[in-house]
Amino acid sequence: MSGFVSFVSSGPGDPELLTLKALDRLKSADAVLYDDLSAGPILDHVGPDADLVGVGKRAGRPSPKQDHVSRLLVDYASQGGRIVRLKSGDAGVFGRLEEETTALRAAGIKFEIIPGVTAASAAAAAAGIPLTRRLTARRLQFVTGHDVTGALPEELNIAALADPEATTAIYMGRRTFAKLAQRLIDAGLPEDMPAMLAQGVSTPEQSLHRSTMAALVDEIDANTSDAPGLILFGPLADED
Amino acid sequence: MSGFVSFVSSGPGDPELLTLKALDRLKSADAVLYDDLSAGPILDHVGPDADLVGVGKRAGRPSPKQDHVSRLLVDYASQGGRIVRLKSGDAGVFGRLEEETTALRAAGIKFEIIPGVTAASAAAAAAGIPLTRRLTARRLQFVTGHDVTGALPEELNIAALADPEATTAIYMGRRTFAKLAQRLIDAGLPEDMPAMLAQGVSTPEQSLHRSTMAALVDEIDANTSDAPGLILFGPLADED
Repeated sequence: MSGFVSFVSSGPGDPELLTLKALDRLKSADAVLYDDLSAGPILDHVGPDADLVGVGKRAGRPSPKQDHVSRLLVDYASQGGRIVRLKSGDAGVFGRLEEETTALRAAGIKFEIIPGVTAASAAAAAAGIPLTRRLTARRLQFVTGHDVTGALPEELNIAALADPEATTAIYMGRRTFAKLAQRLIDAGLPEDMPAMLAQGVSTPEQSLHRSTMAALVDEIDANTSDAPGLILFGPLADED
Repeated sequence: MSGFVSFVSSGPGDPELLTLKALDRLKSADAVLYDDLSAGPILDHVGPDADLVGVGKRAGRPSPKQDHVSRLLVDYASQGGRIVRLKSGDAGVFGRLEEETTALRAAGIKFEIIPGVTAASAAAAAAGIPLTRRLTARRLQFVTGHDVTGALPEELNIAALADPEATTAIYMGRRTFAKLAQRLIDAGLPEDMPAMLAQGVSTPEQSLHRSTMAALVDEIDANTSDAPGLILFGPLADED
């Protein structure tokens, strides 16, 4: 008898930004497979008898191959019980979710997906601003700043991203921001377009830095932090 | 002594998709100003002594002007206490948040924003699919299907929305979908691009209808429901 897998979105980091449904699944789990990014105080909700299995990146070591993670998830679920696969933010947004659901379907294992608060929503909320603005930012878009090799993805839609009437969130965008920002400015995005670097959103280490596209390139260059960063840019509202 | 306003994101409708922080603010509120869209079982969490103030649209009646809502919020907050302004989905996404924060700032009233689960995340999760896909949908974008007059917004970035390598969510997009879909297909979006209409996401009335761009135009036309609908389109993953 196979188990049942709940993909649980952990939200941006603050355990208080878990949903009630996510909390329920964590409390009743027989095993929790987690990435380091989404761990910490959230795992305190897991019962004392549950298996805790770290499957994410570890500092200084290569991250496990995605197919290894999927295989591990299938192995756990095949043994039965209630399995939680914890994903940071919202599981459906840059969470490599499809690779794992495909493996579960192939193995005939049932699953559910519990949506959660994505980092862009939390970053804007922390800054006291909306992600959309009625007349000036009617489109909101999310991209990731790196592909599986860590480089800026080749196939970006530069025209869509250079649109000055959209709010754009770049997930994991810190390391490749200089290159992307230059391409967008070359494509017509104003250098002085408001931009914000958000790190450790909703955690005790949260830092929010408001700037402009051109200035943020230099400021990030000088920033040696390894924290994954989310960058918002566009006609952002005035800060709190 | 002024009160303190918590903008609380209610999530897509299921009270179990409230965050723990949202629940805390509802339980300790002295007054809750809510829109009808986000009401229902979520308001059961509010304490018996709190004022419940409906400020949203009502069937068959014109919706209150936004500046009236902002003024009411300032009036309540000026009397002191803990005021919750409940917003459906994530408050920062098409929630007309800025009009209200601007009014509070002008009145010198402090506030916080509690982020939540936006409808697109909940719709994709309910369908068992991710919003982004590693190679085929690296960009995710949200737009609204109508402006304040109810018409399709004039200033849409059609090229960005017609990109076949993005997932697009149209909030409140049902009524204007035929017009938008035609413009996108004329701009090159394949007629057979997968599309999904999601209504009542995460509620007992949830319906998910998977189709294609061209077919969905006809199917929505035949659909007389008044429920607000979210439409997802793009290279959506296979359904559960």
